[in-house]
Amino acid sequence: MKKVAVIMGSDSDLPVAEKGIEVLKVYGVPFEVHIYSAHRTPEEAAAFAREARGKGFGVLLCFAGMAAHLAGAFAANTTLPVIGIPCTGKALEGMDALLSTVMMPPGIPVASVGINAGKNAALLAVEILAVEEEALSEKLREEREENRRKILEKDRAMAGRY
Amino acid sequence: MKKVAVIMGSDSDLPVAEKGIEVLKVYGVPFEVHIYSAHRTPEEAAAFAREARGKGFGVLLCFAGMAAHLAGAFAANTTLPVIGIPCTGKALEGMDALLSTVMMPPGIPVASVGINAGKNAALLAVEILAVEEEALSEKLREEREENRRKILEKDRAMAGRY
Amino acid sequence: MKKVAVIMGSDSDLPVAEKGIEVLKVYGVPFEVHIYSAHRTPEEAAAFAREARGKGFGVLLCFAGMAAHLAGAFAANTTLPVIGIPCTGKALEGMDALLSTVMMPPGIPVASVGINAGKNAALLAVEILAVEEEALSEKLREEREENRRKILEKDRAMAGRY
Amino acid sequence: MKKVAVIMGSDSDLPVAEKGIEVLKVYGVPFEVHIYSAHRTPEEAAAFAREARGKGFGVLLCFAGMAAHLAGAFAANTTLPVIGIPCTGKALEGMDALLSTVMMPPGIPVASVGINAGKNAALLAVEILAVEEEALSEKLREEREENRRKILEKDRAMAGRY
Amino acid sequence: MKKVAVIMGSDSDLPVAEKGIEVLKVYGVPFEVHIYSAHRTPEEAAAFAREARGKGFGVLLCFAGMAAHLAGAFAANTTLPVIGIPCTGKALEGMDALLSTVMMPPGIPVASVGINAGKNAALLAVEILAVEEEALSEKLREEREENRRKILEKDRAMAGRY
Amino acid sequence: MKKVAVIMGSDSDLPVAEKGIEVLKVYGVPFEVHIYSAHRTPEEAAAFAREARGKGFGVLLCFAGMAAHLAGAFAANTTLPVIGIPCTGKALEGMDALLSTVMMPPGIPVASVGINAGKNAALLAVEILAVEEEALSEKLREEREENRRKILEKDRAMAGRY
Amino acid sequence: MKKVAVIMGSDSDLPVAEKGIEVLKVYGVPFEVHIYSAHRTPEEAAAFAREARGKGFGVLLCFAGMAAHLAGAFAANTTLPVIGIPCTGKALEGMDALLSTVMMPPGIPVASVGINAGKNAALLAVEILAVEEEALSEKLREEREENRRKILEKDRAMAGRY
Amino acid sequence: MKKVAVIMGSDSDLPVAEKGIEVLKVYGVPFEVHIYSAHRTPEEAAAFAREARGKGFGVLLCFAGMAAHLAGAFAANTTLPVIGIPCTGKALEGMDALLSTVMMPPGIPVASVGINAGKNAALLAVEILAVEEEALSEKLREEREENRRKILEKDRAMAGRY
Repeated sequence: MKKVAVIMGSDSDLPVAEKGIEVLKVYGVPFEVHIYSAHRTPEEAAAFAREARGKGFGVLLCFAGMAAHLAGAFAANTTLPVIGIPCTGKALEGMDALLSTVMMPPGIPVASVGINAGKNAALLAVEILAVEEEALSEKLREEREENRRKILEKDRAMAGRY
Repeated sequence: MKKVAVIMGSDSDLPVAEKGIEVLKVYGVPFEVHIYSAHRTPEEAAAFAREARGKGFGVLLCFAGMAAHLAGAFAANTTLPVIGIPCTGKALEGMDALLSTVMMPPGIPVASVGINAGKNAALLAVEILAVEEEALSEKLREEREENRRKILEKDRAMAGRY
Repeated sequence: MKKVAVIMGSDSDLPVAEKGIEVLKVYGVPFEVHIYSAHRTPEEAAAFAREARGKGFGVLLCFAGMAAHLAGAFAANTTLPVIGIPCTGKALEGMDALLSTVMMPPGIPVASVGINAGKNAALLAVEILAVEEEALSEKLREEREENRRKILEKDRAMAGRY
Repeated sequence: MKKVAVIMGSDSDLPVAEKGIEVLKVYGVPFEVHIYSAHRTPEEAAAFAREARGKGFGVLLCFAGMAAHLAGAFAANTTLPVIGIPCTGKALEGMDALLSTVMMPPGIPVASVGINAGKNAALLAVEILAVEEEALSEKLREEREENRRKILEKDRAMAGRY
Repeated sequence: MKKVAVIMGSDSDLPVAEKGIEVLKVYGVPFEVHIYSAHRTPEEAAAFAREARGKGFGVLLCFAGMAAHLAGAFAANTTLPVIGIPCTGKALEGMDALLSTVMMPPGIPVASVGINAGKNAALLAVEILAVEEEALSEKLREEREENRRKILEKDRAMAGRY
Repeated sequence: MKKVAVIMGSDSDLPVAEKGIEVLKVYGVPFEVHIYSAHRTPEEAAAFAREARGKGFGVLLCFAGMAAHLAGAFAANTTLPVIGIPCTGKALEGMDALLSTVMMPPGIPVASVGINAGKNAALLAVEILAVEEEALSEKLREEREENRRKILEKDRAMAGRY
Repeated sequence: MKKVAVIMGSDSDLPVAEKGIEVLKVYGVPFEVHIYSAHRTPEEAAAFAREARGKGFGVLLCFAGMAAHLAGAFAANTTLPVIGIPCTGKALEGMDALLSTVMMPPGIPVASVGINAGKNAALLAVEILAVEEEALSEKLREEREENRRKILEKDRAMAGRY
Repeated sequence: MKKVAVIMGSDSDLPVAEKGIEVLKVYGVPFEVHIYSAHRTPEEAAAFAREARGKGFGVLLCFAGMAAHLAGAFAANTTLPVIGIPCTGKALEGMDALLSTVMMPPGIPVASVGINAGKNAALLAVEILAVEEEALSEKLREEREENRRKILEKDRAMAGRY
C-alpha cells in the first residue's frame, strides 16, 4: 500500500497533526511524520516532494498556520495529491491559513480541508488510497456505519432525557 | 480507468465546471456530467453518491455556490474522495460558498479547492487517479514541464521588453 | 397543538439547544429532542424531515456548527418551516455556520436566527405556531410585557445609582 | 387566509421585494405592499406592526439594506413572525445588512433569509401559513416536485451534451 | 449646560458605559443613565428620544451589541447628535455591532465610535458641547496636554530602560 | 454661526464630499472645502486643525479612503468634533477605510459615519451646530417631516400598484 | 547602485507591476523584470533568489494574487529585503493575497504593501536603497515636496470653486 | 552602522516590541526605544520622524494597534523605510490594525509585517541595513542556516517518535 506523509511546518502544529496520525493508525495505513518548513527549509521540502512518489508515498498531508504556504510548496514539486490543513495561529481565527492554503492559482491544486481539521485530512487521504484498495474502502464504510450507530444511540438517549 | 463525476448544483455553475471538463478531456479521463441539487433533488443526489463506486466512479467533483452543501451531501453518501468547488454568487465574493464547502465536521471530509477553481478541481481528480495510474502521472508531469517552459519563455520575453 | 422538533447535528450543540428547550417548556409547546447529522446520518435525517408533518410537527429547529448543512438538509425534505441556529465552533467566530445556514439557494428557504441564538429560535417557533393559536399569541404578548417591565425597572435602578 | 405584509425600507429595495411578491401571487396568498422606514417613519412602522395581527396579517416580510433595522423594528412591535431580507447596498457586499438583520438580541426573534433572497422569504412565509393550511402545504409540495423534475430534466440534457 | 444621556440596550453593556460615565464626571458634564432597549421597550425609547431636547439634553450616547439598533432607533426620533458605541458580544468580535451602528441609511446620521469605545464616546460628547462652551474646550485641551506629558514621560522612561 | 470644514484626503473623494456640501448649502451653514492629506501634507493638515477653532470652525468633516488616517490626524490636533467619512477604494469594499476611521485609540475620538456617507456626515455636522442653534434644529425637524411625508406618499403609491 | 528585481507570479500582474516600474525609471534605479511562479517554476524562482545578492540586486519586488506565495518563496531563499505586493483576483477583493503575503511566520520576513500597491512597493524599494544613497534620498524628498505642492495647489483650486 | 528606532504607540505594545528588540540585540544593531503616539503626541512624532535620518537612523519600526496610524504618520514625515507592526487589540483579531497599517495611499509607503510580528519586523530592519553591510548579511545567513538545522533536527526527532 502507498504511504502517507504527514508534514508539519512547525512542531506547534503537532496537536492538530496527531488527530490525523491517529486515524492513519486506525486504518493501518503506513505513514511517516516530518517537519519541513516552506520558508526555513525550502530545499529539503522541495526535495522531499520531488522524491515522494518514488519513495512509495501516495498522498501528502501538509499542516501549517498563518501565511500557510506549505501545502502549495509541496504541490509545486509533486503531482501526488497534496492535502492542506490550515491551522489557527494567534490572530485572525485561522482565516489567514485557510485562504493561503485553498486559493491556489490554476495549475497546481491543493485539496484543502477545514481549519485544524487533522482528522478529516487523514480520512481524505485514506479515501484517496481506497479508490483502488477495496479493503480500505470497506473499512471506511464500516466506520461510517459505526458513527451512524453512535449518533442514533445518542438520539435515543435524548428521547429518554426529554 | 475510474470515471470522474462532474456534478453541478445548478446550471448557472456550468461556466466554472467547463474549465474542469476541459482538463478531463485533455487527460483522457472518462467522465459524466450531472446536475443534482442537494436541496431540490436530495434523493437523486444521495442515490447517485451511494451508487457511484459501484458504477466505476473514482472521484466526484461538486460545483455549488451560496450555502454550498452539495459536496457535503455527496460526501455524506460515499467514501469516494469528493472535491468541492465553491462558486461565487451575487454577494459576499464567494466567501459563503468557500466556508460552506471547506469547514466540514469531523468524519466526513471534503477536499476543497479555491473559489471558482474548476481547473484545479479536475487536476486534483487526475492526481488522485494518477496515484495508481503511471500513465496519468507521467502526463501530469509533462503538463507541469510544459507550463514551466511557458513561464520561462514569458520571462525571457519580459527581459527583452524592459 | 403542533409539535416542535429540536434537532442537533451533534451533542456538542446541546448547551445552545437547551436555551431553546427551556423556552418551549415555558410556553407549554410539545416538543421532541433529536440528534441527527446531515452528514453522518443523512438517511435518518431525511426520513425524519419527510415524515415530520405527518407526525404532527409544525416547526423544526436545527442546531449545527461549522459548514452547518443541517437546516438545509431538513428543509430539502419538508415544506414545514425550518429554523436554523448557527453554532460557534473552534474557529471563525461562527461566521462559517452563519453563512452555511442563511445563504440558502432559491426554492428551499431556511429561517436563520443569530449565532448561538437558541432562545430566539424557540421564540420564533412559538410565534409561528401562534399565528393560529390565540392562547400562545397572548402568552407571547405577556412575556414581552414582562420583559418590558423588567427593563424599565432596571432603568429606574440606574436612575437611583447615578 | 392570513395576509402577508411586504414592507420595504426604501423603494430601492423593490427589485428584491418583487421576487417575493411574484411567489405570493403564484400561491394565491393575499398580501399588501408597503414602504415604511425604521428611521424615517418610525411611528408609522411601529403602528403598522402593532396593528398587523388585528388586521389579519400572519407574517411580515421586511426588506432593508445597510444597517438594516427594519425587521428588528417590526419584530419589536408584534409577536407575529417577522422575516428579514438583507439587501445589498453599495459597499460591503451585503454583510452589513445580513449582520444587522440576523444577530437580534435574545427575546425578539427575526427570521433571516439570505442576502437579496426575496423569493425564499416569500416561500418561508407560505410555509408558515401552510402549517395550518393543508391546501398551501400541498401546493408547496407540488412546486418542490416540479422543481425536482426540472432539475432532473436538465440533468438528462447534460448527459446528452457531454 | 446641556445634559448628556447615557443609554444602554442592556445592563450587560454597563462596563463599557462606565468608561464613558467616568469621563463625564471628570468634565463636570451633567448626565443621566438609562436602560432602554430598541426592541424590548421601543415606545419608551422613542418617547425618551422625542423629548430629549426639550428636557435639556444635548447629546445621546447609545451602547448596544449584536444587531445594535439602539443608536439608530434614537436617531430616528431626535435631531440631537446621537453617538453609537458598538459593544462586543459572544461572537463575531463586535463586527456585527459595528456595522449595525455605523452603516446608517441616508437622512438619519449616527456618530459611531470604535468597538467598546465608551471613553471616546463621552469625549466626543464633551467635544460637541464644547463647540459653544469655552470652559469645556479649555479643559479638553488641558487633558490632551496632560496625556501628551504622560506619554513623553513614558518615552523618557523607555530611553533609560534600553 | 460656526463654520464647517469639508476636508478631502484626495480629490478622488470629491463625489462623496459633494453629497455633504449639498446638505450644508441647503441648511445655509457656512463652510470651506479643502484638500489636505494626512500623509502628503501633514504639516498643513496639522496647522489647519490647530487653528480651526480660532478661525470660527465648529465641526470638521474628513473624507478619506484606504488606510484612512485623515480624520484621526485632524482629531489629534483639535478638540473640535471631527467626523470621519470612510470612502471606498479599489479593493476591500471600504472595510479598510471604515476600520481605519472608526477604531480610534482612547483619548482622541472620531465620529465615524457609514462608508461613503457624505450626506449623513453633513447632517451630523448640522445636528452638532443645532445643539445651540434653535433655527437649525427647527430646519432639521422640518426636513425629517418632509422625508416622512415622501415615504408615506410612496407607501400610498405602492398600495395603488399592488 | 544596487538593482531592483521586479518579479511577477503571472503576466496578469503586469498592470500592477508597471506602476512600480514607472517609479523605478523616474528614480533612475536599475532594475530587471521577471516572471517566475512560486508554484510553476519553483526551482528557477529559488535559484534567482539565492543568486540575487551576488548579481547585484538590493531589493526584490514580488507581485502575486490569490494564495500569493511568491514573496514568501523568494524570502525563503535570500536575506535581501523582499517586498510583497498582493494583487486582486476574481474573488475576495484581494484579502486572500493580502493575508498570504503579510502573515509570514517568524524568521522569514516579507515587507507587504497594500493591495495592488505597485507604486508604493517601488517607492519603498527606493527608500531602502536610499538609506545609503544620499542622491536617491534627496530625490525622494523632492518628490514629496512636489506632491505637497500639487495638493496645496488643488486645495487652493477648491477654495476658488466653493 | 545606521540605528534602528523602535517606536510604540502605547506601552501596551511593549510585549510585541520586545520580540523585535531582542533580535536587534542579537545582531548588534544599535537602536533606540521610544513611545510616541500619532494622536496624542503628533508633533513630537512628526519631529522625531523629520530628524531621524539626520540623527543616524536607517529604519523605523512602528508598533500600534486599532486604527494604527503610527507607521503612516512617521512615513509621512521621513523618506527612511518605515516598518509597521499591526498589534492585536481587544476586538477584531488585529484586522483593524492590519488594514490601517498596510493599505497606505500611493506616495507614502509603509512596509507592513504580520499581526504582532515584532521579530520579523526587526529581521526586516536588519535585512535593510544588510543591503550594504556585508557582516550583517553574513550573520543573517548564519541564523537562517541555524534555523534550518534546528528544523531538520526536529524532523529527525519526529522520525524516531513515530
